[in-house]
Amino acid sequence: MQLADLRAAVYEANMELSRRRLVTYTWGNASGIDRASGIFAIKPSGVAYEDLSPESLVLIDLDGRVVEGTLNPSSDTKTHLELYRAFTDIGGVVHTHSPYATAWAQAAEDIPCLGTTHADTFRGAIPCARDLTPAELAEDYEGNTGRVIVETFRERSLDPRHLPAVLCAHHGPFTWGCDAAQAAVHAVILEEVARMALLTRQVNPAASPAPQALQDTHFLRKHGPHATYGQR
Amino acid sequence: MQLADLRAAVYEANMELSRRRLVTYTWGNASGIDRASGIFAIKPSGVAYEDLSPESLVLIDLDGRVVEGTLNPSSDTKTHLELYRAFTDIGGVVHTHSPYATAWAQAAEDIPCLGTTHADTFRGAIPCARDLTPAELAEDYEGNTGRVIVETFRERSLDPRHLPAVLCAHHGPFTWGCDAAQAAVHAVILEEVARMALLTRQVNPAASPAPQALQDTHFLRKHGPHATYGQR
Amino acid sequence: MQLADLRAAVYEANMELSRRRLVTYTWGNASGIDRASGIFAIKPSGVAYEDLSPESLVLIDLDGRVVEGTLNPSSDTKTHLELYRAFTDIGGVVHTHSPYATAWAQAAEDIPCLGTTHADTFRGAIPCARDLTPAELAEDYEGNTGRVIVETFRERSLDPRHLPAVLCAHHGPFTWGCDAAQAAVHAVILEEVARMALLTRQVNPAASPAPQALQDTHFLRKHGPHATYGQR
Amino acid sequence: MQLADLRAAVYEANMELSRRRLVTYTWGNASGIDRASGIFAIKPSGVAYEDLSPESLVLIDLDGRVVEGTLNPSSDTKTHLELYRAFTDIGGVVHTHSPYATAWAQAAEDIPCLGTTHADTFRGAIPCARDLTPAELAEDYEGNTGRVIVETFRERSLDPRHLPAVLCAHHGPFTWGCDAAQAAVHAVILEEVARMALLTRQVNPAASPAPQALQDTHFLRKHGPHATYGQR
Repeated sequence: MQLADLRAAVYEANMELSRRRLVTYTWGNASGIDRASGIFAIKPSGVAYEDLSPESLVLIDLDGRVVEGTLNPSSDTKTHLELYRAFTDIGGVVHTHSPYATAWAQAAEDIPCLGTTHADTFRGAIPCARDLTPAELAEDYEGNTGRVIVETFRERSLDPRHLPAVLCAHHGPFTWGCDAAQAAVHAVILEEVARMALLTRQVNPAASPAPQALQDTHFLRKHGPHATYGQR
Repeated sequence: MQLADLRAAVYEANMELSRRRLVTYTWGNASGIDRASGIFAIKPSGVAYEDLSPESLVLIDLDGRVVEGTLNPSSDTKTHLELYRAFTDIGGVVHTHSPYATAWAQAAEDIPCLGTTHADTFRGAIPCARDLTPAELAEDYEGNTGRVIVETFRERSLDPRHLPAVLCAHHGPFTWGCDAAQAAVHAVILEEVARMALLTRQVNPAASPAPQALQDTHFLRKHGPHATYGQR
Repeated sequence: MQLADLRAAVYEANMELSRRRLVTYTWGNASGIDRASGIFAIKPSGVAYEDLSPESLVLIDLDGRVVEGTLNPSSDTKTHLELYRAFTDIGGVVHTHSPYATAWAQAAEDIPCLGTTHADTFRGAIPCARDLTPAELAEDYEGNTGRVIVETFRERSLDPRHLPAVLCAHHGPFTWGCDAAQAAVHAVILEEVARMALLTRQVNPAASPAPQALQDTHFLRKHGPHATYGQR
Repeated sequence: MQLADLRAAVYEANMELSRRRLVTYTWGNASGIDRASGIFAIKPSGVAYEDLSPESLVLIDLDGRVVEGTLNPSSDTKTHLELYRAFTDIGGVVHTHSPYATAWAQAAEDIPCLGTTHADTFRGAIPCARDLTPAELAEDYEGNTGRVIVETFRERSLDPRHLPAVLCAHHGPFTWGCDAAQAAVHAVILEEVARMALLTRQVNPAASPAPQALQDTHFLRKHGPHATYGQR
C-alpha cells in the first residue's frame, strides 16, 4: 500500500465518525496501518474534523516514532500502538466517546449480547476492561490503556478478530477491524448495539441474552467459511 | 401488474426505510409480490441502500426459486416467502432492526396497546413470537422464522390483516401490508408505537392498556366498512 | 380578518408541526378561527403535510357545518369545535401525537411543573383529562373528547388562557392559543416540557415541583400587565 | 478589543447555541465582555435567533447600565452581570434550557463525574445551586440567581476556572469561559456530559464516579502547564 492511499483511507474513516455523529468537536480518532512497512496514520491531536485533510495526518512507526507530519499525533496514539502490536491481524483502530457506548463504559459493565443485531458483528458480550491502577495511570496512561485492553482479551480468552470492540472503564469504546474503514463501521454498530441494549433493559430489566445457538447462527451467517450473507 | 412496476414499487419501499432512518448500513429489507404471477421482488443481500436500483432487486417465485436477478437475494428471503404463503392477503413485507421495536423484541415482550396511536394501525398488542429451538435454527433458520410467526398468529387467533406486525424474539420486527409501500409505512408506525410504549412505561411502569372501547373506536375509524378517516 | 388570511395562517401552523417534527405522516392537525365571522379553518382528514395548501383547508362554522371546501375535514374537527365554543378567548387549536406528550397521556398522568421551562408558558401542571366512558365513545367520540377537556378545566378551576394545553388519557395532547401559530408554538413547548419532565424523573424519581414562588415569577415575567420579557 | 469585534464574537456564540440545537425558539442567551472597558454584549430579550445580528446585541457596563442598543437586553442580564463581577477571570457567559442539563437542574442534583468525557472539561461534579428563597425571588430574581451561583462556588471552595458550569435548581444551566465562544463550547459539552451521566445511571443506578486519579490525569492532559493535548 502507498502511504498516500493510507492517508486517504484513514482521512475517510475519521470523516465517517463525524458524518455518523459519533464525535463532538475534536473528540475521537481513527488510525490505519500499512503492515508491510509497519507504519500507521492517525488523526492529529485536537484538530477539528472540518479542518482535517489527508496531509494533516501523522505517520507513526511501531516503535511509536513520528515518521512524517508536523502536528502532534492524537493523545491516544500509544493506545493505538499497543493494539497494533498485540492484535497482529488488525489494520485499523477507532476511538470515540459515542454516548451509549460511553454510558456502558462509565457504568463499567459488559454489553451483553441481547439479539441478532449484536451477534451479526460481535461474537459474545462486548467486554469492559478494568480501571487502571494509579501507578499505571501515572507511569504511562495511554500505553497502559492499550495493555489493559490486551490483558482483558487474553485473560478472558477472547479473539479480537471475532470481537472487534472493547469498553475502557470510566472512559469509552475502542473498536478495530481489517482497516480503518471497518474499524469505523464497527464503532457505528457498537453505538447502535449499546443503545439497543439499554433500551432492552428499560423494557425488561431482567432481559436475558439471546440463545447461544441464535448468536452462533447469525455470526456465522456473516463470518467465516460458511457465511452466506451478502454478495460473495 | 407489470414486473417493472413491482420493481419500482419495491425499490421505493426499500428507500423509504433508509429515508425514515429505520436502517443502518445494509440492514433491513422490503419485498412486494405480484399475486397474479406469484412472483415477489426483494432487496439483494448486503447491498447498501445508496447502491440499490429497481434493476438490482431479485425476483423470486413462491417455490423460492430465483426467477430474475444476478445478485443473491436478502438472507431473510425465506421468511418473506413463508409469510406470502401463509398470509394470502398481504402484498408486501418489511424487516428492519429499528431500535425501539428491536428493544421490545430483544426483551421478548409483546408491545401492549397503550393508546390511540397504536390502535389507529394495529388491533391489539403487537405479538412477540417465541425463540426458535436449536433444531429449528439448525434445520432452516430463515424459513422457520416465518413458520414461527405464522404459528404465533394461528395459536393466538390473530388476524394478520388487522395486526400487520410481529416481533421475533431476540431478533427484530417484521411488518406487512397490502403492498410494499404499506408494509414500510407499518414499519415506521411500529417504531413510533414501540418508542411511545417504552416512554409510557418510563412515566408510569404500571401504565395499563387503553380501554378496549377506545381501541375499537380508533381502529374502526380508519379501517373497515364504517371507516370515516381520510378522503373516501 | 379575511378568510384568505385565515387559510394562510392555518396552513403555516400545520406546516410548522411538520417542520418541528411533531407529526408522522398525516397525524395531527391545526385550526384557527375568525371570531368575527365564527368560521374556523382546519386541516383536511388524512392528507399528507407535503400535499397541503391553504386552499385545501376546510372552513367550518360554529354549528359544525362545512362552509367551504371539498375535502373531508380532520376527524378531530368536533373536538376543535367544542374547544372554540367553550374557550371563547382562544383563536387556534392544535392536536398532535408528539411522542413525549403522548407518553404522559398514555400513562394518564398530569405533567408536573418541575422547572422554569414549564412555568414560562404553562401555569401549573398540564392536566390529563379522564378516559371517556363507553357510552361517551359510542355517542359522539370526538365531540365528547372536547367536552371532557372542558369539564376538566371547569372541575379543576383552571384558566385555559394560562394553561393552553391538555392531555387526553390514552390518546395525546391538544394545545391552543390566541391564534393557530401560537397553538403550534405551545405544542412544540409542551413536547419539550414533557420530555424534560420524564428526563427529570429518570434522574430522580422523587423530583418535586418547582417552588410555587419560582413558578409565579417566571410565568409573570412573560405574561400579564407586569411582564418584562421580550420587546414591548 | 474593539466593540465591533465583541459584537461579532458574541453574535457567533449565540448562533452556535442555535446551530448545536441547545435552544428552542428564543430561549437561551450568550454574552461576552471586554474587560478593558468593562462592557459586555448580550442577546436582546425574546428575539429569535434567525432575527439576530451583531448590531441587535445590547451593550451593558458593569453597573448594569445600557451603554448601546435600542432593544431590551436578555431578561437574564443581571445574572450575567453578577458572574462577570464575581468571576473576574471569565470573558463569556451562556445560559440555555438544554434538555439533559435542565433535567439534572430540575432534579436539583449535582452531575457526578462518571468518566473522562466529563473530566476532560470539568474538574469534579457540576454543582447544582440551591433554590432561591421567596424573599430572594421577590427582591431581585435575576441578580440573586447570580449571587447564589457565586455563593455555591464560594461555600464549596470551587474554582470557576476549572469548573465552568453550574445548574440552577428547577431552572437550568449557566456556563462560562475565557470568551463567549468558549462559554458556548462548554454549554455543548455540559449537555453531552449530562446526557451520558443519565444514560450511565440507566445502565447501572449505582454507577460510581470515575477514579480520582483518572479524573486528574484527563483534566491535566488538557489544562495547565503540563497539558499535552492539542497543538501547542
